[in-house]
Amino acid sequence: MSRHFESAPGLCEQRDPATNDFVFNQTMLRIKDPAVSLDFYTRVLGMTLLRKLDFPEMTFSLFFLAALSEQATQQWSKDTDERTIQTFSRPAMLELTWNWGSETDDNCQYHNGNDEPKGFGHIGFAVPDLTAACQRFEALGVSFVKKPADGKMKDIAFIRDPDGYWIEIFEPARLPKGLAGFLG
Amino acid sequence: MSRHFESAPGLCEQRDPATNDFVFNQTMLRIKDPAVSLDFYTRVLGMTLLRKLDFPEMTFSLFFLAALSEQATQQWSKDTDERTIQTFSRPAMLELTWNWGSETDDNCQYHNGNDEPKGFGHIGFAVPDLTAACQRFEALGVSFVKKPADGKMKDIAFIRDPDGYWIEIFEPARLPKGLAGFLG
Repeated sequence: MSRHFESAPGLCEQRDPATNDFVFNQTMLRIKDPAVSLDFYTRVLGMTLLRKLDFPEMTFSLFFLAALSEQATQQWSKDTDERTIQTFSRPAMLELTWNWGSETDDNCQYHNGNDEPKGFGHIGFAVPDLTAACQRFEALGVSFVKKPADGKMKDIAFIRDPDGYWIEIFEPARLPKGLAGFLG
Repeated sequence: MSRHFESAPGLCEQRDPATNDFVFNQTMLRIKDPAVSLDFYTRVLGMTLLRKLDFPEMTFSLFFLAALSEQATQQWSKDTDERTIQTFSRPAMLELTWNWGSETDDNCQYHNGNDEPKGFGHIGFAVPDLTAACQRFEALGVSFVKKPADGKMKDIAFIRDPDGYWIEIFEPARLPKGLAGFLG
């Protein structure tokens, strides 16, 4: 029996035990202005700032955020070294990189990967109720790439973060039916 | 008391309960050739392919991978609809997008976000032993942006995936000491 759940070209069947404890920990995006981006990710998306690392000689800072339940938040250490280890150990951290001064540099604008040249596409959040989440985003003045009613796929939305990075929004329980008409 | 663990500009202190169950689910990267990328992510990094979605009318496919323990793998459903819901519900999914035909299109080369124009930076994996992981990557012929011995920071490495996206590799327990000399 395959260790994978789908067939596809290139799949490695025998997992190297050396990889057993690898954790997909982080996704890093550069941001122009932390005051704007931290507001967006902590207010609009409800994330928690777990660790901030300032590198004065290299004039940049890193902000590590997670989408955490209140209960999960209580498992985090107040000790900074211990929290550094926790930050780099857990899955699904969003790492925001701020190069000092970019917030006042008119020439600094980051590339979202969906305009040319393409590459990175988006990050994505599951929400319990897509309709309610999108109504709230509209009320908060969030910029949409695609509302649920736009285009063919009615069960997903895309919003923009302050730097223009795309964030997909979806309600997992709606997707099997929502995708059914499109899948081969 | 703050709900965050660091002070920084822009932090929202009162979490909107509407965001309580938001999950940072996915990071999407475009890939040129699934046979090459799936080999890399399942063999070199040990990930598991959990769901593949083919969109024949729109001529693209999505591959959803996770770094899972063997035990966690057993919690996944064999039912495709149920597994779709699981795939979009859990944290830390890597979503690879393949536009059909790109693998034989000499003009298709994706942008890694670290060359100009900059934006997305990298994804990152925690490993239990950085030295052993990097020796294994070298033995497997993986391309390095930075080996641990290169540059100032000796406790992190960067490798390249087949499309040139950067992947940071680090051993969490080494980081408090490794970063100490650089932090403000």
